[in-house]
Amino acid sequence: MKFTFLGTGSGVPAKHRNVSSLALHLMDKKGAIWLFDCGEGTQQQILHTKIKLRKIEKIFITHLHGDHIFGLPGLLGSRSFQGGETPLKLYGPKGIKEYIDISLRVSGTYLRYPLTIKEFEETGQLIEEKDFTVWTGVLVHGLPSFGFRLEQRDSPGSLLMDKVKEADIPIGPLLQKLKEGEKVQLPDGRFFYGKNFVGPPKKGKVIAVLGDTRFTDGAVQLASGADTLIHEATFSSEDHVIAEEYFHSTTVQAAEVAKLASAKQLILNHISSRYQQEDTHQLLAEAREIFPNTFIAEDFSSFDC
Amino acid sequence: MKFTFLGTGSGVPAKHRNVSSLALHLMDKKGAIWLFDCGEGTQQQILHTKIKLRKIEKIFITHLHGDHIFGLPGLLGSRSFQGGETPLKLYGPKGIKEYIDISLRVSGTYLRYPLTIKEFEETGQLIEEKDFTVWTGVLVHGLPSFGFRLEQRDSPGSLLMDKVKEADIPIGPLLQKLKEGEKVQLPDGRFFYGKNFVGPPKKGKVIAVLGDTRFTDGAVQLASGADTLIHEATFSSEDHVIAEEYFHSTTVQAAEVAKLASAKQLILNHISSRYQQEDTHQLLAEAREIFPNTFIAEDFSSFDC
Repeated sequence: MKFTFLGTGSGVPAKHRNVSSLALHLMDKKGAIWLFDCGEGTQQQILHTKIKLRKIEKIFITHLHGDHIFGLPGLLGSRSFQGGETPLKLYGPKGIKEYIDISLRVSGTYLRYPLTIKEFEETGQLIEEKDFTVWTGVLVHGLPSFGFRLEQRDSPGSLLMDKVKEADIPIGPLLQKLKEGEKVQLPDGRFFYGKNFVGPPKKGKVIAVLGDTRFTDGAVQLASGADTLIHEATFSSEDHVIAEEYFHSTTVQAAEVAKLASAKQLILNHISSRYQQEDTHQLLAEAREIFPNTFIAEDFSSFDC
Repeated sequence: MKFTFLGTGSGVPAKHRNVSSLALHLMDKKGAIWLFDCGEGTQQQILHTKIKLRKIEKIFITHLHGDHIFGLPGLLGSRSFQGGETPLKLYGPKGIKEYIDISLRVSGTYLRYPLTIKEFEETGQLIEEKDFTVWTGVLVHGLPSFGFRLEQRDSPGSLLMDKVKEADIPIGPLLQKLKEGEKVQLPDGRFFYGKNFVGPPKKGKVIAVLGDTRFTDGAVQLASGADTLIHEATFSSEDHVIAEEYFHSTTVQAAEVAKLASAKQLILNHISSRYQQEDTHQLLAEAREIFPNTFIAEDFSSFDC
């Protein structure tokens, strides 16, 4: 899986950082994409990537501030206009349904695909599907703000071809059954047990994508043991008083969350436009003092997760 | 006065044409700007111009389709965030108030300036102010769509300096009174009448900015004698059947409106993304066959009006 950052700014758009949005490429057969937040201009940002709107299957909204939702009605409409016919699921805090319903109705926007909107109000399990479980967790912001914890299921181990060769099992459809752990019988009468020819299961990834927040234990819980933590860093460490006042985090606070959670990788976004591009080095350095494996996302940055 | 086109595309944004918006620079002492329509990403387009959000005094919405309104909530919020404190008036078809009220409320957007929203539903006088009268007129589209006719008041003529010199009137504050048409007396006792020293009044401009529409007499009435007519041309002349079906106009239909209205200048916008940049020449040529003084707007084009 990988992320493409579509907007990494804070509050209002700037020339080089649009407002918040983030695409997760599931890298499955369908090329499915999950979108996190959808600030104004997200669909315009997508025009500069290879992402197709019809491939977006789920959209997760962390909170209802305009820089995280004002791109939704346009993106939903364009997904239909561009031929999207497959279902889309939208998950967001209470209020998102009213906003979408009114926006689509007033503008006469007709969607040619089924849109399901699921609202949530508290910490809990949001999705349990074949490949993923997704949890919400409450953060601390000016209005209800949430993080998402995605737990990918472990996938079966690979077939150990050395052992297959050693046992002189011929290449063919029986190998798939063996890989699935079944007992198979060859035409020559020999029996084999899948468990003896399959490596250990591959650990599923854990990803935490957090909305705007002050430093909070809730963030640490969401990110516990995560392979990748996406955390806002609106302010530099020295601006911690303003960060507190506006219910945001500093670079160092985000790094502390990653450290306390024993995350493996931290990616910072939602950078205030008060910092220039040349300040990025300093913002990164102060976070890395606490949590070395930290990166700062730019618009259109990609990261494996 | 001049126009800056901020979005000249149709329906969905494309790389080189964003969705609809148009800024009218009044060129008055305040540097006031009136905005016509506000599709998603208008505030991002403005970042690439010299326009300051706080200078926008009025916003006119032609109709409620998403490509004309989905940039409003973000722009209203950013105008406040960037220090705008002066009143803003928003004029739009019935429904615009509900959309704005819900968008601002759900997103917790607080405006530090007074926002007045005035809805209209039919042809009539919308504004009568010192410098302008503005009329709405009904067009023909998939939902209620309107055009605006701006009639600028005539302004007093210039002071005829040749005559001032001939009459041996000294330079000084009395000249301003003379310019205003008053009777003035010089210290040497001589009397002069303003009307004898002032040229003919300058004719105010008439501008017609139209929303999406099929060809209709209503458009001709709005544009009657206009110095500048801004008219949509979503489709080329050969695509007139699709234009009719989708309630839009062709280049040639827009040119016919300009001709029938005896307008002086026609600027086409709202160009479908099916046409490439290299098609512009052909689109322009077919309109100019009917109305020679026609131009096609690109994003960030400026035109005197």
